[in-house]
Amino acid sequence: MKRLKCVVAYDGTDYSGFQVQPEQVTVQGTIEAALQRITSETIQIAGSGRTDAGVHAQGQVFHFDTHSAIPLEKWRFVLNNQLPDSIVILSVEDAHPDFHARFDVVRKQYRYCIDNGSVPELFRHRYADHYRHPLDVECMQEAARYLVGEHDFTSFCSAKTFVEDKVRTIYELKVMREGDLIWIICEGNGFLYNMVRIIAGTLIEVGEGKRDPHDFARILAARDREQAGKTAAAKGLTMWKVLYE
Amino acid sequence: MKRLKCVVAYDGTDYSGFQVQPEQVTVQGTIEAALQRITSETIQIAGSGRTDAGVHAQGQVFHFDTHSAIPLEKWRFVLNNQLPDSIVILSVEDAHPDFHARFDVVRKQYRYCIDNGSVPELFRHRYADHYRHPLDVECMQEAARYLVGEHDFTSFCSAKTFVEDKVRTIYELKVMREGDLIWIICEGNGFLYNMVRIIAGTLIEVGEGKRDPHDFARILAARDREQAGKTAAAKGLTMWKVLYE
Repeated sequence: MKRLKCVVAYDGTDYSGFQVQPEQVTVQGTIEAALQRITSETIQIAGSGRTDAGVHAQGQVFHFDTHSAIPLEKWRFVLNNQLPDSIVILSVEDAHPDFHARFDVVRKQYRYCIDNGSVPELFRHRYADHYRHPLDVECMQEAARYLVGEHDFTSFCSAKTFVEDKVRTIYELKVMREGDLIWIICEGNGFLYNMVRIIAGTLIEVGEGKRDPHDFARILAARDREQAGKTAAAKGLTMWKVLYE
Repeated sequence: MKRLKCVVAYDGTDYSGFQVQPEQVTVQGTIEAALQRITSETIQIAGSGRTDAGVHAQGQVFHFDTHSAIPLEKWRFVLNNQLPDSIVILSVEDAHPDFHARFDVVRKQYRYCIDNGSVPELFRHRYADHYRHPLDVECMQEAARYLVGEHDFTSFCSAKTFVEDKVRTIYELKVMREGDLIWIICEGNGFLYNMVRIIAGTLIEVGEGKRDPHDFARILAARDREQAGKTAAAKGLTMWKVLYE
């Protein structure tokens, strides 16, 4: 028996999120079905965390255990061969038997992509949310500074969550323009339910001039979801990378 | 009554091609349904040419006639509002009543995209065909030179075609690498059925080392579809632009 660690990219558009759910097509379910065909074993994979329906990944991580004799260097090819084009295994490596894709996470990075062109860029239509009115990136960057550090992120968390401890640390929150695209890059030690999408949605309202950047201090202190802005659309969000020790 | 000329981009993945077909979801049918909702008129649009199922466009052109009083500058927004994200109207302008999107074409440019990375780039998976073995772009470029100019392209045309005159002029055929992507850029006065995909498929065989670049002279002279290579996958092909006088 050995444990393998995999990095996977996926286009989340046509999946009901990462995590297995009854009667739904999910990324995890699709990967587990491929593993079953390859190994004839019933394998449950453990992801670094779930992603919502429509959210993408460039570097989601999962691990699984297998008795299979497939050589390590063949795994990536064999797996990709059994997966649809919308799921791509980027790497497969041996992991320590104690390694856990969820419990051992140290940092995660998400990126939110806004297409700010006057008309949407076709090849980004599944991976970016389109705002045709020009957004003020400098104001967004100014607002973003208030969130860096250790804070109670209750205001930036779906009211539907059951997690008690809402203190998280954001190490980096950058807003940058790259041609017509605006990227919100957010790295932290963990994220609450819908946290990055609510941060993105509230930053967009600052970019539109509907909110003052300094409003972010008040929103954070209020610990009230109602004070923050809308939850930005799932399709603009990509789990970019997961970092371990 | 006035005639409008539109430039449209679309992600062809989920459409049965551009042209209306009974019982199928097509780009043309989707645009005509949107026009009907907007104007309450029954409008038939005329495209610059059809594209096959799965083929994309960055700059397809069509025209239509309408009695609608919608101001010209509102049209793009109104149309995009009624269209799915996979179809984007880039511009709408007044056209001369004699303008015809198909008959007045002077040049067309197609681009074929190959993802030549060791693993596919996720955000390109719908718009590029993936070859993980490195292709020799210089050899492909050398082969491409044989096709520039006026030639009988019978060898690079689907045997299923009914067109009699297979002489076309290619003004430009470039093969260029951009990071892991290889672009085949092909501009000509007209294209036969599957012509760009057969050219791309045959160039790929040169890039793989399975064919000599100079083989292209023989293939062209043979006027026999069997002498050329495979038809490359539809998803890598994009109708890039259509030029008028």
